[in-house]
Amino acid sequence: MGVSPEEVFIIHRSGPDNIMDSFKTDFERIEQVLNRHFSSHEPFINKVSQYILFSEGKRLRPLLTVCSARLCGKTDEEVYNLSVIPEYLHAASLLHDDVVDGGKMRRGRPPAYEIWGNKAAVLVGDFLFARAIDLASRFGIISIAKTIAETVALMSEGEIIQLLQMRAQCFDEETYLEIIDRKTASLISTSCRIGALLAGARESKVEALGKYGLYLGQAFQIIDDILDYTAEASELGKALGTDLAEGKLTLPLVVAIKKASSKERERLLQILREGNPSHEEFIWVSNMLISTGGTEYARCRAKALISSACESLDIFPESKTKDSLKELAYFVLDRHK
Amino acid sequence: MGVSPEEVFIIHRSGPDNIMDSFKTDFERIEQVLNRHFSSHEPFINKVSQYILFSEGKRLRPLLTVCSARLCGKTDEEVYNLSVIPEYLHAASLLHDDVVDGGKMRRGRPPAYEIWGNKAAVLVGDFLFARAIDLASRFGIISIAKTIAETVALMSEGEIIQLLQMRAQCFDEETYLEIIDRKTASLISTSCRIGALLAGARESKVEALGKYGLYLGQAFQIIDDILDYTAEASELGKALGTDLAEGKLTLPLVVAIKKASSKERERLLQILREGNPSHEEFIWVSNMLISTGGTEYARCRAKALISSACESLDIFPESKTKDSLKELAYFVLDRHK
Repeated sequence: MGVSPEEVFIIHRSGPDNIMDSFKTDFERIEQVLNRHFSSHEPFINKVSQYILFSEGKRLRPLLTVCSARLCGKTDEEVYNLSVIPEYLHAASLLHDDVVDGGKMRRGRPPAYEIWGNKAAVLVGDFLFARAIDLASRFGIISIAKTIAETVALMSEGEIIQLLQMRAQCFDEETYLEIIDRKTASLISTSCRIGALLAGARESKVEALGKYGLYLGQAFQIIDDILDYTAEASELGKALGTDLAEGKLTLPLVVAIKKASSKERERLLQILREGNPSHEEFIWVSNMLISTGGTEYARCRAKALISSACESLDIFPESKTKDSLKELAYFVLDRHK
Repeated sequence: MGVSPEEVFIIHRSGPDNIMDSFKTDFERIEQVLNRHFSSHEPFINKVSQYILFSEGKRLRPLLTVCSARLCGKTDEEVYNLSVIPEYLHAASLLHDDVVDGGKMRRGRPPAYEIWGNKAAVLVGDFLFARAIDLASRFGIISIAKTIAETVALMSEGEIIQLLQMRAQCFDEETYLEIIDRKTASLISTSCRIGALLAGARESKVEALGKYGLYLGQAFQIIDDILDYTAEASELGKALGTDLAEGKLTLPLVVAIKKASSKERERLLQILREGNPSHEEFIWVSNMLISTGGTEYARCRAKALISSACESLDIFPESKTKDSLKELAYFVLDRHK
């Protein structure tokens, strides 16, 4: 049983801002733990880490851990302690991705590597990975440490497949889904799974929350892809068209390449190959994504995924927390940044 | 009770080659596991990993895990499965270090990043880190996962302190020891500790083997420092004088800077600051290390550390494995590459 149109309407009425406001206390407690737990003997590591950790991140991953644990009946301080682990992993991967992709803006600010150099970004990223797993092992639940290690492996595999895809100029939907599953959705899924594991939930509940997170993560990335061509740069917090400039595979683009005329396809591929498109080229590509139905197709896929995410929660009895997780899913769909 | 001069003499008589030959069966089994365990769905990851994993490494770390477990009474296949974990971590850190330091040669071959790019090196390094911790979590012993995570944090801290030291041109022995403890000795110590942990050894034995590995690791790095100025490039498998070119703090250099006349010190620091020394400058620095007693001092420190490493094993009853670990320590001291 999924979410009916009526339900969607009710959920939507509360509006994206309201749902995030309702998690205010959770966010405050997450922030406290992020501040408390993170410390190296080396002030420089703290400086770089704090730059990336406290840069107006949405804290979606820790919130999912907290809500998942709550849905499985666990609400104590341990939940907040655990919830910062996916945020550390996320920060670590941002540090490494920035080095890797040469991205120019991250959450409205220059990336860490431009300030402190590639060396520092790679090493502080390593430190954050290690601290996340160290923290995970402190809970004494081996399945948590294991799921996190597997996720880090998947994330790096995803980035590598993306790297090879960019080099090979391979643009099919299957490759695209393989990439986003690993590099984005796996960590969002794990954020949910570890909450359930900490709560000692039975396997079916862990799997249900894992699926919720996986679908949510896929939708999250698809929306990100759309925003890269449509958002206001100031809202997105990074330069618009970054994906295009890097020749990155995104879902609207996959469709556009497939649906375009052979002449248009050739121009699209040439722009992707050459990188650094002019403003004119960017506008032309953006329009292609709309005229070929690429953006629309991507948005429909994201919507369907959000429905699937909500359906995954069917095995749980109705509760305020279950409603919150559904609202959160629709917030991800409707976000503008 | 340490190793007496007579003992050292007896150990030395067997010669460095003989001791490594005596581990032939262990090395073969380690190699089998390295080949078996390592696989990603992505062939490219396997290619880059294999390049770094099968590049004539000494396999010192896996051997220490195997011998440590054996000293604590465990000898089955599980030991070999565990032993590859520190080798994966070592390979991962080499991949990241090569990106980081811009080193030109690694084990006689160009570094991975020069062949496949910085991106691939960082990401495959991440993948190897993750696989090592994933593998560790499969043993179901949380203390093993924890000690490995702590070690990765220490290693990245060590690299970062080294990075800051190079930037700040800070050359004191205390900083030097802090760096090598973290970036080299911690993993060698952990290689020993995890063997003991897998064997279910009591805390005092885990600590004793951890100390043995720590002293051995410190000595290993000091010998490495000396070899960078004295070995034949073909033997060392990397360009001679790499440390000098990178302005890296090494123990002979610490002493030379302290003991040199103010004029000589100024020239030394200038060469370090400017990087890329000429052949003449390299020879001049090498001679300074000898005339100031820097090399001699470093060698004495390494010898003393090897003695301490052997003393750490005093709590274990006499056995063939204990002798082997002592011989291995002297092999590290006498190595030429």
